Amino acid sequence: MPDKATTYMLITLGEELLLGLTRNGHLTYIGDQLRQRGITLHSNYTISDENHDIDDQFAFCWGRADVLITTGGLGPTVDDRTKEAIADALGESLIFDESILESIKERFRQIGRPMSDNNRKQAYRPESAVAIENPNGTAPGLWLEKDGKILIMLPGPPNELQPMFENQVIPRLERLGLIDQGESYLQIRSIGIGESALETELRPLFDQYENLAVAYCAHQGQVDCRISFQDSSEREEELHKIGEECRRMLGADFLGYGHDSLPEIVLNLLKGQNGSLALAESFTGGQIANAITDIPGASSVFSGSIVCYSDEAKMNLLGVPRETVQKYTAVSQSVAEAMAVGAAKSLNATYAISATGYAGPDRGSKDTPVGTVFLGLHSPDGTEVHRYEWKIGRLAIKRRALHTALDLLRRKLVGS
Amino acid sequence: MPDKATTYMLITLGEELLLGLTRNGHLTYIGDQLRQRGITLHSNYTISDENHDIDDQFAFCWGRADVLITTGGLGPTVDDRTKEAIADALGESLIFDESILESIKERFRQIGRPMSDNNRKQAYRPESAVAIENPNGTAPGLWLEKDGKILIMLPGPPNELQPMFENQVIPRLERLGLIDQGESYLQIRSIGIGESALETELRPLFDQYENLAVAYCAHQGQVDCRISFQDSSEREEELHKIGEECRRMLGADFLGYGHDSLPEIVLNLLKGQNGSLALAESFTGGQIANAITDIPGASSVFSGSIVCYSDEAKMNLLGVPRETVQKYTAVSQSVAEAMAVGAAKSLNATYAISATGYAGPDRGSKDTPVGTVFLGLHSPDGTEVHRYEWKIGRLAIKRRALHTALDLLRRKLVGS
Repeated sequence: MPDKATTYMLITLGEELLLGLTRNGHLTYIGDQLRQRGITLHSNYTISDENHDIDDQFAFCWGRADVLITTGGLGPTVDDRTKEAIADALGESLIFDESILESIKERFRQIGRPMSDNNRKQAYRPESAVAIENPNGTAPGLWLEKDGKILIMLPGPPNELQPMFENQVIPRLERLGLIDQGESYLQIRSIGIGESALETELRPLFDQYENLAVAYCAHQGQVDCRISFQDSSEREEELHKIGEECRRMLGADFLGYGHDSLPEIVLNLLKGQNGSLALAESFTGGQIANAITDIPGASSVFSGSIVCYSDEAKMNLLGVPRETVQKYTAVSQSVAEAMAVGAAKSLNATYAISATGYAGPDRGSKDTPVGTVFLGLHSPDGTEVHRYEWKIGRLAIKRRALHTALDLLRRKLVGS
Repeated sequence: MPDKATTYMLITLGEELLLGLTRNGHLTYIGDQLRQRGITLHSNYTISDENHDIDDQFAFCWGRADVLITTGGLGPTVDDRTKEAIADALGESLIFDESILESIKERFRQIGRPMSDNNRKQAYRPESAVAIENPNGTAPGLWLEKDGKILIMLPGPPNELQPMFENQVIPRLERLGLIDQGESYLQIRSIGIGESALETELRPLFDQYENLAVAYCAHQGQVDCRISFQDSSEREEELHKIGEECRRMLGADFLGYGHDSLPEIVLNLLKGQNGSLALAESFTGGQIANAITDIPGASSVFSGSIVCYSDEAKMNLLGVPRETVQKYTAVSQSVAEAMAVGAAKSLNATYAISATGYAGPDRGSKDTPVGTVFLGLHSPDGTEVHRYEWKIGRLAIKRRALHTALDLLRRKLVGS
């Protein structure tokens, strides 16, 4: 179990998060960064930077955290009032820092733009805070130690926050001995088996061990099972032995240890077998290609994708015969098969995935209603097509097709 | 300003959120749903379902909220302990509800799978709670009214939570008069202008109005500016007049009112002009196509995308001349131009966007380092190519290319 001696809390400021206009990427990023270093973030509080209760919320966290991180609210515009509210809550005054102003001016010189007058606002800091340099923006971060606690205030834009966190915040925390060495739990990732069925299958094994903590998390057709010993973080070998037993029990439903994503796992399998992959995507609209090309090094196995939204594109670029489209319609077993074969050929790849279906909201027919999906898989063994009918929304259908298609390929590659 | 008479708070449970393993989609979804109905979510608390401080956190929120929503922690596995902790905090006992068990059994009959014994756990509820039916999963939601407040507990899987929220929770809140009619602010969305420059430009206009609240939010090259009158939510005409003045001042940097995304705006412009769009994507790897096909109805203007990760694909599928690739390399102005022309031709479209570049981490050269990007735009007026050099990470480069490319097309379509 991760060391809980040091309590890390995160406050993410921004009305746009509460209005559902942007995703809370800072939670994901900072949670992940800490996790990689053996720390489980205790909690995250999202409040509006316009919120008049900000002192109340801040006080709640400051009373409970050892390390409190805030993001956002350091901008130049009038609605950025975080520093004022937090300084108030800490009983500090804000002072104008000439050296911060100098670095803001320098930043504007570098990007060749005039400094707006409102940027002067960014040069204020609580009296006991020091600036954390921001090479990618105007607002510096702030670091404040008080009452045996640490407050770290970071700017909102991810391209400013992230390098600052990795290059400056983490090293400072390390110097203070507040960062551990690595994860002290083992994560077993499964796919194609439900959460309750997985628990039922694995529980008899886990019940043999005392003090074994088990947590399950289901997402996108995958279920992660994290195991750790509550009494010690140094029984890694034993955890690994349990993991190997799970792997044996799960067979092809075992996806991997740790946090590798399904696209990463598929790419690594392809690399190991000197295979290459082509795609023919109709309703998935490039989503499978996009997920694959998010992985560094994808180019060594990924040939490309033909996103064929029109029937013409299916015929001209993939060589699907016109008669096949006319006889069976574009959402059919035969077209899915021809698309997979055509993609492998056009893009010169050993494996190909095809996807055709009705993601909705319109179209579909009696026999192939909205939610009907055909996924084709071409491999050196031949071509297979699978049919699904999913009663979920447009984006959910696209996403499920992505995971289902990659898992079909993965099972083929592991030979199951 | 949204009516703040009713305070809505959201607790999202899940260690996976704090570990950065999954994104907090429930915040985005529920925040958006409430926003559409004129409500600004007050705050969101993310805590682990394994957290022993859960009562402390729950008590903090229960003391401040009028409507408190929780997500997650209702699953069948042993680590799902939310109900227990919350019932404790409310001073309630958990009782076993036969009718809930019946609906769980019915659910398993429908999907043709045997019920695991651990699913019985999901039939417990706090004594004063009533079940909210879950047609898409085993765990029902729970609705509890106490001390003049409402507690709504929802299951974690999005495909269960979302229909439950829209079809059952919202109507119940409406019946209780806790939902307003609509947004009482105006959002002005801009693109291509920085946050502080935008504020400097618009402030003289805003300063002419008393009680005008202004909030800025920057994301992905766009800056949203939300304006509202603090003293009244019924001055919509006046807000609109101010908005029109902003629109005039911003010119082509004005993206739109409200929350339409850049892909939606581009698709609507294309539809209005009977245009069609093809893509040739190298390093963007299908991301542009994916963003476009996320929009319902994309098929009426989107022809498709050729994701050409290899030089061969660029030549065979887009007709880029071999000599051009050999002379200038694949990341060059000439290849970007030939890709755009080739995509328009192969996919028979009036407009085409091409993207070629080095997203990293490897490759690149002295003259075209990692971060070099060429975006081509083919239109009935001809073909133009723009060169960029972005010192950001792989995924950020892909994302910035998506927005930049769509904005190039948008500016062409609005004739600026």
